[in-house]
Amino acid sequence: MKARVHVMLKTGVLDPQGEAVKHALGTLGFTGVEAVRQGKVIELDLTATDRAAAEAEVARMCEKLLANTVIEKYDIEIV
Amino acid sequence: MKARVHVMLKTGVLDPQGEAVKHALGTLGFTGVEAVRQGKVIELDLTATDRAAAEAEVARMCEKLLANTVIEKYDIEIV
Repeated sequence: MKARVHVMLKTGVLDPQGEAVKHALGTLGFTGVEAVRQGKVIELDLTATDRAAAEAEVARMCEKLLANTVIEKYDIEIV
Repeated sequence: MKARVHVMLKTGVLDPQGEAVKHALGTLGFTGVEAVRQGKVIELDLTATDRAAAEAEVARMCEKLLANTVIEKYDIEIV
């Protein structure tokens, strides 16, 4: 079973990477970009076969390692 | 209009970040993780209102800045 986790900075937390990308796009002539946020995506191949169990396990991984829940939010997708 | 871009290393390209995450999960007691790949997710707020035009513009951004197409693949989602 495959899981995909998105880890993004929470709304309101300054995102310097996103700002840098926005600025770089501007200097390359891409107008029309209002905002950019950058985050991580983590794809996991799991041996689990039960969808609910896999999702719960990945949530624990996020809480313990994959996301810093003080400033980041995560979103789990089982595919 | 919002666009979400996933940038992942191409299959076959060594992913040391993913390997590090896999190893760390193992040491934390998460067995059952076969493979981990880590990539970037970039969320863009665009002024464009035409879906096809927005997608083409974001593809140009990927080719020019957001992805290193020698080793990375990208995937655009207009939301």
